[in-house]
Parts: sequence; structure tokens; C-alpha cells
Amino acid sequence: MVSKSPELEHPKPAFGWAARDQSGLLSPFKFSRRETAENDVAFKVLYCGICHSDLHMTKNEWGVTQYPCIPGHEIVGIVTEVGSKVEKFKVGDRVGVGCMVGSCRSCDSCHNNLENYCPKMILTYGAKNYDGTITYGGYSDIMVANEHFIVRIPDNLSLDVGAPLLCAGITVYSPLRYFGLDKPGMHVGVVGLGGLGHVAVKFAKAMGVKVTVISTSPNKKQEAVENLGADSFLVSRDQDQMQAAMGTLDGIIDTVSAVHPMPPLLALLKSHGKLVLVGAPVKPLELHAFALISGRKIVGGSCIGGMKETQEMIDFAAKHNITANVEVIPMDYVNTAMERMLKGDVRYRFVIDVAKTLNP
Amino acid sequence: MVSKSPELEHPKPAFGWAARDQSGLLSPFKFSRRETAENDVAFKVLYCGICHSDLHMTKNEWGVTQYPCIPGHEIVGIVTEVGSKVEKFKVGDRVGVGCMVGSCRSCDSCHNNLENYCPKMILTYGAKNYDGTITYGGYSDIMVANEHFIVRIPDNLSLDVGAPLLCAGITVYSPLRYFGLDKPGMHVGVVGLGGLGHVAVKFAKAMGVKVTVISTSPNKKQEAVENLGADSFLVSRDQDQMQAAMGTLDGIIDTVSAVHPMPPLLALLKSHGKLVLVGAPVKPLELHAFALISGRKIVGGSCIGGMKETQEMIDFAAKHNITANVEVIPMDYVNTAMERMLKGDVRYRFVIDVAKTLNP
Repeated sequence: MVSKSPELEHPKPAFGWAARDQSGLLSPFKFSRRETAENDVAFKVLYCGICHSDLHMTKNEWGVTQYPCIPGHEIVGIVTEVGSKVEKFKVGDRVGVGCMVGSCRSCDSCHNNLENYCPKMILTYGAKNYDGTITYGGYSDIMVANEHFIVRIPDNLSLDVGAPLLCAGITVYSPLRYFGLDKPGMHVGVVGLGGLGHVAVKFAKAMGVKVTVISTSPNKKQEAVENLGADSFLVSRDQDQMQAAMGTLDGIIDTVSAVHPMPPLLALLKSHGKLVLVGAPVKPLELHAFALISGRKIVGGSCIGGMKETQEMIDFAAKHNITANVEVIPMDYVNTAMERMLKGDVRYRFVIDVAKTLNP
Repeated sequence: MVSKSPELEHPKPAFGWAARDQSGLLSPFKFSRRETAENDVAFKVLYCGICHSDLHMTKNEWGVTQYPCIPGHEIVGIVTEVGSKVEKFKVGDRVGVGCMVGSCRSCDSCHNNLENYCPKMILTYGAKNYDGTITYGGYSDIMVANEHFIVRIPDNLSLDVGAPLLCAGITVYSPLRYFGLDKPGMHVGVVGLGGLGHVAVKFAKAMGVKVTVISTSPNKKQEAVENLGADSFLVSRDQDQMQAAMGTLDGIIDTVSAVHPMPPLLALLKSHGKLVLVGAPVKPLELHAFALISGRKIVGGSCIGGMKETQEMIDFAAKHNITANVEVIPMDYVNTAMERMLKGDVRYRFVIDVAKTLNP
């Protein structure tokens, strides 16, 4: 097909902020969205969280970015239109879209509500959609997506602090469930206290699990314990502390995406313990087979969650008053926010107030 | 305590072959065994398998060997004496001892029939026993051990071909069970066709699992498929074969203890697949986090099995006619056998005919 310009390829005029090259700098951008098809839900975007992967993508650090790139996959808003066959949503509903907007719907993964592992899963931005056009994310005024990939946000969950749950929340919730680290009385470690880590602490605590935060930054201890509800805190560079905690954890959710040593983390696990990676260092990690074999331990990975589980996670969050700690920013602050995020200067997630601050 | 000579420290005269230094060369050696205590079983050793770890230990390649070192932890024989409180065994019974002869019996692992993960587990040879003396293995004429660590060998399982199951067998049987790779219709890979790998194929087949052997040696294909019953064979260095098999396996039992690349193995797994290491390369392996995260895969390890499961494995083997393929050798061939084993020149396990060939 002859590709049209982003502004003309679809009938609905849309507006957002896009990166144009690997400087990653975002600036205003006119594009378009498709008509609301029979199984589609269209919504006005109110807020969109800024995920660390938005930074990787806008700077093409994974080598897959197509420009212009409108990032954003923690998108919440209010339904403005529904297709003729949409059954679950109506105009005015509070909804969200996370990391994906499509999948094959016919493979084993899709049949098992694991669309996130479908080989044909379509990412919310920067991916090729069914019609060959590129998907655009939530740093924009409107969204259109198949209702299967729309999540309902319960009334008691505020949209600004709920948005980050659509990526950060499900990314940690799903492995806590799948790897069986959700049993009351268990003791789980959370490595890294950032966007993912801080909600991991909250979800694990709500599941009745004892939580130890493991971080390189001693100055995060007070906040982890007093504000986020962690039971204890380990400074990963303090060998005495780490030594004393050896063999105490049933599992670890490791949210750190910088290369970091695994032996000290594996040593914290009890026999049969599970180290789950949800941050993906680009360079390989060193794995000592004996550290696994001697205690029947595992290292696993987990990538967001399926749509059914994402809804379950949001409902669980609403029930247990779990929200992300956010700093709400205007759209034109987004480039500064990216710089601050890179330095770890945010507690713990930036959320863009799209509806009030995105001016065409 | 003042340590006595190995020949005098216990009341029962015993005789075996020991390594005296890190040359690893074995030679005749007089030592002694303890009296049969009230919970002990004494037995005459008939056969003992040669495990690759015997070679590591006799050469002190793990840096923990105390000389003289009598190796051997695949030991079978006939009961000659039982202690006053022994309930499960009587004189004349066919029995075996595997990799361990003691554990604390009070920790969580012990309470869960996982003595193999007890921090105080006592190895069958080269370890410090309760009384401070060093344990000696099965390249010797008699054994004495607590009945808890004695396995009953069913009548229909020949002792020579059954001996290697006590280490090689349980090492692969346990992870097939624990990691849920034992479901009929599943498809499991076995990496490395040696002492461990060849019994892994047999156990997995008996469980109703489809088995693919993965090996660097194309010349093992015929034997794997025609004699051992594998369903298919992949040459790990053949990129076309490996590419074509991507995403087809539910799990892999990796028996290779040389450093080898993990990405091609992880690529063979379906989503949610499990790569289980039972061979322990000394150097760290490279683990690409993304390879785990993108398919919720795990890398795990497993170390032999508990006593309850070891008995279950032996009973399963007897029921399904699973035996090791062995080359029975006389004791004075043991140094040559070690050299051949190092070159992979054995199909698939050497077993020493101790009773007939160990001459004081």
C-alpha cells in the first residue's frame, strides 16, 4: 500500500507529542486515528503515565523505533464513542489502555488469556497495526482500540494515580501471582524502588506478603518503610546486611534494568526460591549454575500481563486502595520529565495531565 | 578430638580404593567403618557406579577434597546387619546408598522430604560425619548408613544397571517431576547424552513425554532414537535445525557441565517453558534477561532428590524397566575408566563390580 502521511491516513484528526529522531525530544505533532469500528472503543485521553520504556523508545535505544514516535502506554480517559458490537463499555465510562492494543486472538497464549505472550501482539505505540499503519501512544488527545484491549477503571480509583498501574502495576502484579509469591506469610524482596518497585511493594503488602526492599540507595529506606509499608530494607551494597539476610526470601521481584550482580540476590533466596526479572538489562547477566542447583532456585522473567489479569489487577488495586505515587505534569514539561526520570529524580512516576495541558 | 588413622578410627575393618592427592589416581586403601548403630544398616557392596563428580572430587577440582578420598555414591549391595531399631530392612535385602548419608532431620527441607537441600546434609564421601570423621564412598567392600538414607532396590531391578540410578537417575527424575515436565503429551528436550542424559530420556519417555535429544555429536543420533527411544534429535551446532525447532519445547533438562550458550536453548522453549540445569559449569553462564521476560521462561536448577523421592524413582524405574546402560569393569580398571569417562568414551556409565574384583 502507498503510505499516507500520519495526518491523513485515518479519518479522525488527532494531536499529540512525538519524537522525530533519536534525540528523543518530543514536540507537537498532528496525526490521525481510525474510525471507531464495530468492536472499537474511542476515548478522550485524560492522563498518561511516563514509563521508562518511553525513553528507550523515543531515543531508539532498542533499535526498533520508527519515527515519528508518540509514546505512552499508561493511558486513561473517558469513553466518547463505542462501536455497534461493543458490549462491555458505553459512552462516559472510565477506561484505560496499557501496553498492547491487539493480538492474534487464536494462538494458545491468546486462548489462555495471555495475549501479552502472543507472537503477534501489537504494542500500543511504535508497532505495525493490522492495517499496516503505525500505532501511536497516549501522549495524545484521543485513543481508539478494540474493546478487548480496553480496561475498565473502577469509580473509586482516581485516573491520574491509576494510569501507571496499566504498565507498572501489571508488570509486578502478574509475576507475584504466576510465580506463587502472593501467599500470606511469604517473604518477598523487591529490588529497585522506582516506578515498578514502589507499586510492587504495595501489591505484595495487600496480598499479605512480608516485603523487603533491596536498593542501592540507603536514603530510600525511610520512605520504603514509613510511606510505602515495606517491612524492611536492605542496602544491596552493604555486605553485612546482605549476609545477615541470606536464605530468608521466598521470592524476589527484580525491577532493575541496569546490569547488576545476581549472586547476592540468589543468596537471599531460601531453597526453592524464585528470582523474577521484570527489568531487562541490555547486556547479559552472569548466572552461576551452582547457585541455582544447590537450592533448586529459579530465575524467571515476566512481561506485563494478559487483558483478563490486567482487569483483575486494576480491580484488586481499587479494592485495596493501591495507587501509584505520581507527579502530575503538563505536556510541555515532558522533555524535562524524561531527563529527570533518567536521573531517578521522580517519586515515582510522572503522569501527564493530557486533557488540561495538551494544546493544539 | 585427636584424629586416629582411617584404619583405626572405627571398629569395622574396611577396604577400598582411594585417591591420595590431586593426581586423582586411585589405589588400594585400608580404612574402617563404624559399628552398626541401632538405626543403621550395614551392607556388603556389590556394585558401585562411577559418576563424573567422582573425577572432580578425586582431582580436587572443586577445591574441597580431603585426602585420602574414596569416591562412589551409586552404591548397591546386600544387607549384612541391621541395628536394633531398624524397621524397614532385614539381612539379605537388596539396598543402595546414593549421594547422601545424613541430614539434620529437623529443618524445613528435612520435614518436607527434601534432605538433599538441608544445609547440614552429609555427602556420602568426602564430607564430615556427625562424629567428626570423614565419610568414605562406595569404591569399597562394606557400607554402614542410617536406614533413613538406605534405598530398597526392587527384586526385578538388576543391581549393576540399577546402581547409577541412585545419582544419575534421581538427578533427572526429580526435576522432571518438580518442574512439571512429566505430563503425557509434553515435549521435553534433553541436552547432553551421557550418564545423566541417557536415563533422562528413558524416564521422560516412561512418563509419556515426547523427547528430543540435543547434542553436539551428530553420531549420537542413531543411538538416541533407535536404542534409547528418543523421538527426535537436534545437533546443537546446526543452526538450521535449531531454528526450525524454536518454540517447540515445554522444558529442557540440561545435563551438560561444560560452559555452553543458553540463548539457543531458551529459544527452543515455548512461552512459559523451563530450562533446568543439573550440570554445573564452573564458570558463569550468560543470561539474557529479555530471553526470559519475553516468554515468561525460567532457568532453574535441581540437585539429586530427597530420600522419599529417590525410593519413588527406583520403584518407578523397576516398574517401567528403566536401567542405566553400563559397562561393568573390575576395580583395577578404575583409573583407566576415569580417563575414558573424561573423553566421553563410555556408553553411558561405568559400574565397578566391587564384590568380585576388589581384592584386599
